[in-house]
Amino acid sequence: MKAEIIAIGTEILLGDIVNTNTQFLAKELATLGIDVYHQSTVGDNEDRILNSFREAFDRCDLVITTGGLGPTQDDLTKELGAKFFNKKLILHEPSLEWIKAYLDMKDEAVVEANKKQAYFPEGSIILPNPNGTAPGSIISVNDKILIILPGPPREMEPMFNNHVVKYLENITGEVIKSKTLRLFGIGESLMAQRLSNLIENSTNPTVAPYAKDVDVTLRITAKGSSEDECNNLINPICTEIKENLCEYIYGEDDESLEFVVSKMLCDRKLSISTIESCTGGMVAASLISYPGISDVFKEGAITYSNESKIKRAGVKKETLDKYGAVSDEVAREMAEGIAKATNTDIAISTTGIAGPGGGTNEKPIGLVYIGIFIKGNIIVKKFNFTGNRERIRKKTTMNALNILRKEILKLTK
Amino acid sequence: MKAEIIAIGTEILLGDIVNTNTQFLAKELATLGIDVYHQSTVGDNEDRILNSFREAFDRCDLVITTGGLGPTQDDLTKELGAKFFNKKLILHEPSLEWIKAYLDMKDEAVVEANKKQAYFPEGSIILPNPNGTAPGSIISVNDKILIILPGPPREMEPMFNNHVVKYLENITGEVIKSKTLRLFGIGESLMAQRLSNLIENSTNPTVAPYAKDVDVTLRITAKGSSEDECNNLINPICTEIKENLCEYIYGEDDESLEFVVSKMLCDRKLSISTIESCTGGMVAASLISYPGISDVFKEGAITYSNESKIKRAGVKKETLDKYGAVSDEVAREMAEGIAKATNTDIAISTTGIAGPGGGTNEKPIGLVYIGIFIKGNIIVKKFNFTGNRERIRKKTTMNALNILRKEILKLTK
Repeated sequence: MKAEIIAIGTEILLGDIVNTNTQFLAKELATLGIDVYHQSTVGDNEDRILNSFREAFDRCDLVITTGGLGPTQDDLTKELGAKFFNKKLILHEPSLEWIKAYLDMKDEAVVEANKKQAYFPEGSIILPNPNGTAPGSIISVNDKILIILPGPPREMEPMFNNHVVKYLENITGEVIKSKTLRLFGIGESLMAQRLSNLIENSTNPTVAPYAKDVDVTLRITAKGSSEDECNNLINPICTEIKENLCEYIYGEDDESLEFVVSKMLCDRKLSISTIESCTGGMVAASLISYPGISDVFKEGAITYSNESKIKRAGVKKETLDKYGAVSDEVAREMAEGIAKATNTDIAISTTGIAGPGGGTNEKPIGLVYIGIFIKGNIIVKKFNFTGNRERIRKKTTMNALNILRKEILKLTK
Repeated sequence: MKAEIIAIGTEILLGDIVNTNTQFLAKELATLGIDVYHQSTVGDNEDRILNSFREAFDRCDLVITTGGLGPTQDDLTKELGAKFFNKKLILHEPSLEWIKAYLDMKDEAVVEANKKQAYFPEGSIILPNPNGTAPGSIISVNDKILIILPGPPREMEPMFNNHVVKYLENITGEVIKSKTLRLFGIGESLMAQRLSNLIENSTNPTVAPYAKDVDVTLRITAKGSSEDECNNLINPICTEIKENLCEYIYGEDDESLEFVVSKMLCDRKLSISTIESCTGGMVAASLISYPGISDVFKEGAITYSNESKIKRAGVKKETLDKYGAVSDEVAREMAEGIAKATNTDIAISTTGIAGPGGGTNEKPIGLVYIGIFIKGNIIVKKFNFTGNRERIRKKTTMNALNILRKEILKLTK
């Protein structure tokens, strides 16, 4: 099955917002095994929207739109969907009741214009919107299907997940399932090379590598007549990949590296402290994004100055003088010092030159030392990162979390 | 003049990356006064790309593409641009030299396929690419202009800014300039209401409000025959807005709130320390994104536990027992305590309930106290933020920076 996505809205045409809706839908449709060869964006204009419908339905059978479902006269998507298929707009009473209740809950007045949001092309399937006043709808005429979704991502995405996916699975007669493996410390090309046999020769499930900001993912996608059948196709491939790339895989599906590490700390009741120079709080902030972390996170220190490294972590003045603040020795004393001062099982230290100033031939921008104190042992790793200040700090943070993840795994072996 | 943007690339069609290029170009074209009524995305496929060129040039005179300039046989944009306009591809020797030098610098081998990247449609203007191996090009035939740009944003954006803008200004015979004012602490609708007269009645310059993640911006855009003429149109409007909304405006153009505050601290040589509970390092990390900050940032503490609040900042146990960790009193003692312990002019403290757990009727999720110690005075502000854990932490960070900004301004009056 082929589909097209049409984003409708002047704010996208003007570049005021980035079009994440189309990305979301493209990814979901790919997972469902539906091909998308074309995406487009048009403004809230009758002729141009109708023309887009015409062009799209000439090329495919399924068109999904986002946007243009608001209460104002500018919002035309549903009206033009009805016009395109020669349908009348009909009031859907339950939607009107919902819109009233929703606005009432938010202490907002129902204006006459909101009533427009409860009208739908005759014969539509109505898609409820618990997060706003714009329900979606599906119109299907002679094998051509138009799915109309609202513009705000927090309304559109749950509507797609909760209603559209089932509708599309019914149509394609297939269940599609996918599992994502998340890897850190390996590049996309090396990963693809090590799995080249799987990637090139698998058809069901398929195995596809993706490069993200600083990590990479592998998506295994299976089609079948039931969820069980899909799982039976996915699991052996997943096991094979895990055996091959074990040391790089940190999580599955939506698990971020900080989520995985924070969860490991909480599950194993390992207390932690942090002491950061170049990352300046990013390591702590990442760990603290995990809701349960307060049980184990004891204290973080941001010791940007030499003085504070001495005061907080007992780093020796001689060490700083002899080796400099950015050194294996200082990273080591920082980690050990904060762990002892806060009496934690684990401590992370970072010290490095994030730039843009401060680099020398001997210690160039991007030189970073990461120290991990763990149950009495200290590991220090040296890196030479590239990129700008933000990128070096981000890479330092992610690598610190990944080193800690591996050390915790060793601990429990 | 009307333009269309075509993004070319399978990774966008599959939703693997979000299409920020189209947003960037749409925004820049709007600033240049060029109307965009249509944006589209197609994959690396001959028929579909040629068809997109046909459809786009039927509707407008200027088409800008991004992507499809790589060294592989999949990359077709330039080749199909040549085919569309009936032009031969010709080797551009200086580009080949550049590609070789660039790869050499990166210690990468020049492969035969790279040579393809130095071929351009006959009669093209070549757009150099200092950040990669894919130069861009402009083909113009009978008033139809095709501008071909590379896909990676860090190659495409400077190429547009440094070469395409001048080319388009020459064509339109106009210079377009804009200035952006950045505001915090006022919503988009209230801002629009307070400036409704200006926004509705200004034609040159125009004044347009935009809502961002947690702040808002106003863009003032003028057209004229010279840069001076534009500035003369922009400046009085800018002054008028600044008089009206003075307390909300923190910066101009690309200045972020953390940049502005960090710069104020450095310029005024005001030393600072931070002590964070719910934000867990985000305030410090924001300040430390400013390169010169090491001169004034003395120390940061992340005191997630009561124990560490007592130890680091000397918060009294009685205060914690009586008022709880999330309270005006504790925020006050945290700020004062860390300022004294680190001997700084300024200290920022945060304590709050970021959720998802931990909320009560009395102290609901989103309750946050921000404390500022500044030259002996202490200010504490209470907030009730909405949103998820990340959003509450982000809002806390931004508000802490904004309160500090205002307090520093008072100091120097």
